[in-house]
Amino acid sequence: LKHPSGHSVPLLREPQPKSARPLYIRLYQRIRAGVLNGALPPGTRLPSARTLAREEGISRNTVEAALHQLQAEGFVVRKTGAGTWISDELPTRLLRPRRSSGEAGKAPRGGDPSPLSEKPPSLSTCGRRVTEVGGEEAEPVGLLFAPCVPGLAALPLDGWNRIATRHTRRANASTLFQPPPAGLPVLREAVAQYLHMDRGIECTAEQIIILNSTQQGINLVARLLLNEGDAVWFEDPGYRSARRALVAAGARPVPVPVDEEGIDVTHGASVAPEARLVYVTPSHQYPTGVTLSLSRRLELLAWAEASGGWILEDDYDSELRYEGRPLAAVQGIDRSERVLYAGTFNKILFPGLRVAYLVLPRPLVGPFARAKEVTDGFTPPLVQRVLAEFINEGHFSIHLRRVREVYRERRDRFLAVAGDVLPPHARLGPSEAGMHVALHFGGGVDDRDVSEKARRRGLAVPALSSYCIQSEARGLLVHYGHAPVADIERGTRQLAELL
Amino acid sequence: LKHPSGHSVPLLREPQPKSARPLYIRLYQRIRAGVLNGALPPGTRLPSARTLAREEGISRNTVEAALHQLQAEGFVVRKTGAGTWISDELPTRLLRPRRSSGEAGKAPRGGDPSPLSEKPPSLSTCGRRVTEVGGEEAEPVGLLFAPCVPGLAALPLDGWNRIATRHTRRANASTLFQPPPAGLPVLREAVAQYLHMDRGIECTAEQIIILNSTQQGINLVARLLLNEGDAVWFEDPGYRSARRALVAAGARPVPVPVDEEGIDVTHGASVAPEARLVYVTPSHQYPTGVTLSLSRRLELLAWAEASGGWILEDDYDSELRYEGRPLAAVQGIDRSERVLYAGTFNKILFPGLRVAYLVLPRPLVGPFARAKEVTDGFTPPLVQRVLAEFINEGHFSIHLRRVREVYRERRDRFLAVAGDVLPPHARLGPSEAGMHVALHFGGGVDDRDVSEKARRRGLAVPALSSYCIQSEARGLLVHYGHAPVADIERGTRQLAELL
Repeated sequence: LKHPSGHSVPLLREPQPKSARPLYIRLYQRIRAGVLNGALPPGTRLPSARTLAREEGISRNTVEAALHQLQAEGFVVRKTGAGTWISDELPTRLLRPRRSSGEAGKAPRGGDPSPLSEKPPSLSTCGRRVTEVGGEEAEPVGLLFAPCVPGLAALPLDGWNRIATRHTRRANASTLFQPPPAGLPVLREAVAQYLHMDRGIECTAEQIIILNSTQQGINLVARLLLNEGDAVWFEDPGYRSARRALVAAGARPVPVPVDEEGIDVTHGASVAPEARLVYVTPSHQYPTGVTLSLSRRLELLAWAEASGGWILEDDYDSELRYEGRPLAAVQGIDRSERVLYAGTFNKILFPGLRVAYLVLPRPLVGPFARAKEVTDGFTPPLVQRVLAEFINEGHFSIHLRRVREVYRERRDRFLAVAGDVLPPHARLGPSEAGMHVALHFGGGVDDRDVSEKARRRGLAVPALSSYCIQSEARGLLVHYGHAPVADIERGTRQLAELL
Repeated sequence: LKHPSGHSVPLLREPQPKSARPLYIRLYQRIRAGVLNGALPPGTRLPSARTLAREEGISRNTVEAALHQLQAEGFVVRKTGAGTWISDELPTRLLRPRRSSGEAGKAPRGGDPSPLSEKPPSLSTCGRRVTEVGGEEAEPVGLLFAPCVPGLAALPLDGWNRIATRHTRRANASTLFQPPPAGLPVLREAVAQYLHMDRGIECTAEQIIILNSTQQGINLVARLLLNEGDAVWFEDPGYRSARRALVAAGARPVPVPVDEEGIDVTHGASVAPEARLVYVTPSHQYPTGVTLSLSRRLELLAWAEASGGWILEDDYDSELRYEGRPLAAVQGIDRSERVLYAGTFNKILFPGLRVAYLVLPRPLVGPFARAKEVTDGFTPPLVQRVLAEFINEGHFSIHLRRVREVYRERRDRFLAVAGDVLPPHARLGPSEAGMHVALHFGGGVDDRDVSEKARRRGLAVPALSSYCIQSEARGLLVHYGHAPVADIERGTRQLAELL
């Protein structure tokens, strides 16, 4: 292969890296690279296919395949019987070697990170915020008390898999094609019925929109209801992932203290009366475990009604209440359509499920369905169908009863051992509900240090301070829900030794 | 049940709507409603459980269950042996009847839309944009040529379902729990290998981020790379859903004409040199079917390199090329890391699948994975696992070869019949690729009117003008890909009669 000047074009002589790509693609790539870097300028005549085949030691057919592809993509022009030329319609000024490494990088792709990649990319304001808010660190597998990793034994896999297998085998339009963006009607009905019966929610199926996760719900709430910089009352300490979603969307979480009655509404109204949203976890405040009192619920609703603000009620593990029936939701006593209620199946079933929902005031259903469609599309219909049947056939109720027993036993064991072995300066928070309990320390203890030491002993017990904005709460979170009873006993004793 | 004044509280006397809720819940709800609307003020003593049971004609246990729940939620206080009172810690000022209907609405929930619901909600700027951009209207089932509804017969359900069933049965931590936000490594590897071999993409698995849909990808690109009001070159005519995602995210799509070589880069550079992003469909421009020429590709890359702008290459149906091998992607000849390449499995497999991906310049991988996590979470791990195996076991290649044959036959049939029967003023656009072809009309034809008439005859052929911003292109889109050959013949003849 010669340059028009008569010099041999070095490309084809260079040793090529090993590649699984077929020979014709490799020849195609080398000629293409020659065109792009200017070594084979527009108008250059290529050797005949026969000559190329001989020079390269490959078959004539392989050469033809490469030339055919180059022709299809506009790199070469072929005239039957006359030969093959580099297309002379290409803009010569744009065909040149890659810029030098200082400027742009020799090898932008391949095994090693390239100099190009080291330049910080130009992100938008939102992009910079997303980078700055950080992510939830995954707990290393095998640590005791790690949040959000249910034991496989506690999952209702028999019933689930039977239904899932049946619908997978009988795949049809309703599981393979596009459902309405708000979700499959059969699932919206099943969720509405469950919420009506078990959670005291006042809604019809039309008010329910199926999402992938509470995280997606919080993001949509922030995007649709908040402008850049709008204040949001945020429980302090509070759920980190929710704060991240709000910050990433441009909202301004204002810390509002949590006491033994839950979020301090009077404080919120004094520091941020202009807030457009309150993010709350009334059934089981995350992370303290406090239940929002009825008076506070009424105050919160009255504030929202008077100010036109919204309440996002994240009822993340309300199903797990060990004393009596689960408490009714704030949504159920809202008489002014100010509450957006968020629930999820990803925690009570399994995280990989990816089905959650929002119960919305009617005027918001249309905008939220549109936003789900525009920003994502729709939640996979097969899993919606399977979940609807799982609920309608009663498996979900059975599972709830079962895990309530399992988690109650684990909680009781934890409380019993903790009562015996924990030192007096470690005070246990409320434990009527949920899968974790907060352990509060007196002042001056460096809970991150204790958490780090515990981690080195195999215990994943996050520091309470890592959930705080201004709050000076210090302590540890113990997610007993996913640990077998024997491990709970051992882990609690280990913890006590540390304190 | 008496008011302290001695008047009977009417709540319990009213006929109750039929409800599937248990009796105790209904009693609970009526007493709760009495407290909330002020009929039972704080401090009111309730009749004994025995009296209530007799008055209501229900069992003593039912009454006890209701009172227990009211106590747990803070509505009543019970003193053993002394009786039950409405809690006097409740804020009396907040307990009052619902506001009148003119002000707020009598019955905010239930079967009928309430007056409350008729008030337009206060949405954010983004919320208003989302409402204004509108949604893609779903084509009624049963119309011929409807886009995006593959025939079940063309789907590789045997292989897919076998793998899906196996992984469903063998559910384990990798399919039930949380994968990395960027996707399961096994799928990222499989996609990288496929793109390397079949699409001429230069990337490693680390540059791939698994998403639910191209729609989600466009949304993340807009959020992470564009600020409010940033200009984006947008093909005119172009893909409506992409435009909606960009507008909803606050970007400003600038129409750039498409001619027989694809998007007019020179025009773009003259009308919006400040653009931060170009959205392009180079393999098969949607909706015209044009292929972006090599010169234009080079110009586009040169513009992006010089201006620091980004190129979002949406390669939505590049796999379906009927003449020769699929053309290499713009990403493959990008030497400055300016291209974000978007691909999807939802079109070539089935829409309910919900797996797509972006191939990113390395510096963007971290921010995109973080944004996926913060705004959604992760794509369901089971389907990622199944798809990886579907690709690695060779089913995907076989499927591609098969559907290429199926769609080629349909295209050929459409072209043959269209050549015979369509009038000369209806010119066919390029048809080397994809599942649809554009039919261009001469000036002055009202294509929306023709489209509407066709719809009434059972043909879903969208008007080309509905994809235009400033372009005056007029015509129809015929999505032949999902129609059986016999229907194509009939439908094309019907279309010809209309024209």
